[in-house]
Amino acid sequence: MKLYGKNPVIERLKSNPKTIRRVMIDEDHVDLAYIRKKCNQWGIGISTVPRSKIQRLAQNLNTQGILADIEDFAYIGIDELLEHALDKKRTPVFLDNLNDPQNLGGIIRTCGALGDFDIVLPTTESVSVTESVLRVACGGENYLSVARVSNLGNAIEKAKKMGFWIVGTVVEGARSLTELDLQFPLGLVMGSEEKGVREIILKKLDAQVMVPMKNQRMSLNVAHATSMLCYEIVRQKK
Amino acid sequence: MKLYGKNPVIERLKSNPKTIRRVMIDEDHVDLAYIRKKCNQWGIGISTVPRSKIQRLAQNLNTQGILADIEDFAYIGIDELLEHALDKKRTPVFLDNLNDPQNLGGIIRTCGALGDFDIVLPTTESVSVTESVLRVACGGENYLSVARVSNLGNAIEKAKKMGFWIVGTVVEGARSLTELDLQFPLGLVMGSEEKGVREIILKKLDAQVMVPMKNQRMSLNVAHATSMLCYEIVRQKK
Repeated sequence: MKLYGKNPVIERLKSNPKTIRRVMIDEDHVDLAYIRKKCNQWGIGISTVPRSKIQRLAQNLNTQGILADIEDFAYIGIDELLEHALDKKRTPVFLDNLNDPQNLGGIIRTCGALGDFDIVLPTTESVSVTESVLRVACGGENYLSVARVSNLGNAIEKAKKMGFWIVGTVVEGARSLTELDLQFPLGLVMGSEEKGVREIILKKLDAQVMVPMKNQRMSLNVAHATSMLCYEIVRQKK
Repeated sequence: MKLYGKNPVIERLKSNPKTIRRVMIDEDHVDLAYIRKKCNQWGIGISTVPRSKIQRLAQNLNTQGILADIEDFAYIGIDELLEHALDKKRTPVFLDNLNDPQNLGGIIRTCGALGDFDIVLPTTESVSVTESVLRVACGGENYLSVARVSNLGNAIEKAKKMGFWIVGTVVEGARSLTELDLQFPLGLVMGSEEKGVREIILKKLDAQVMVPMKNQRMSLNVAHATSMLCYEIVRQKK
């Protein structure tokens, strides 16, 4: 798997260097000395090559002159994720059929930065943690776990049995996020870009919540809505 | 100026049809009947054409089979923006040298949906409201005003003289957003992707604030951080 772009590679060198097999960097890169030092420290092979070669390997996506060959993303099991979340007071975020890598990457970045969130994805009809996702996540993947499950509804049921209170975000007919007292331990459900949370999942929620929008005809981007929800979770947890 | 993609075009047909000169739509588009009705209602020319032609006109960006020829984006003057914001209890958001159209588009979408926000951009070293920005904004531009100013610092000074309390977001050494009582009327300052708020602008702030991040080594995407700030503004305004 390839990781490219300055922030994603530097963040992984800092927080998860054992998953890096090799780094390729443009000989004029501004952070060359720093990256060389980190690679030497962890015994990671490093080559300085012309930017054109890095670009070719990255199929002309914007690499900012840096690319790392990394181990495949390591998902964990849903039981392990939920038990760890319960134990450490973390919030699992169930993403119901997201399909845009940009959105999953954005959610991983925010959740990783705020801290104490994990992510649950369905295996089918959902984006997974790809190279494009990691590029947008900017290292957030180093601060959370991701589980993939064949049935998201069953995973939510499992969380409920363990005592998680499950809140899902909808676009109408629910309490405003500014007025809802969240219960902890908490699990959050976000719907897909086009369809929101599926009916079959809605039935399993302990509560529904809306982001208060004055212009109801508009819709929020799901990754931005997740950022607002996660911020409110952090705020109420304090 | 061209507007493309289902949500951006449909939202503009609903909220700002007078700025549309012509719509081109793929003959198999799922919303064909609805769009035809709206265009007829407002006297907007509509042509149904093969998707390949629309794609060609949009230089192969993802049009979802719909494209509109629209009037150039209409900026307003800074005085008008601030006076209107003061009068209507809106929050001007000063964006200090943003350079990614995706981020400006994301901010316009969130600010438009939440409502009661306007945007101030510098004319130099900043992205402006381009076609790429409008595509991401998904119609948010119909619910806010944007002013471009030659000197962002002077615009902030002007707002302060009118009584706006100016808060800027920084990454360290400031109060947490969860602990700061915002003062209204309020103006918000967000910094650029790489450098944050410039020193010269920092000096003009009435208060600095941080989004509380557990993993301080990470950084938030500026558009996501803006979403969290705007949500908190909405929450405290209530």
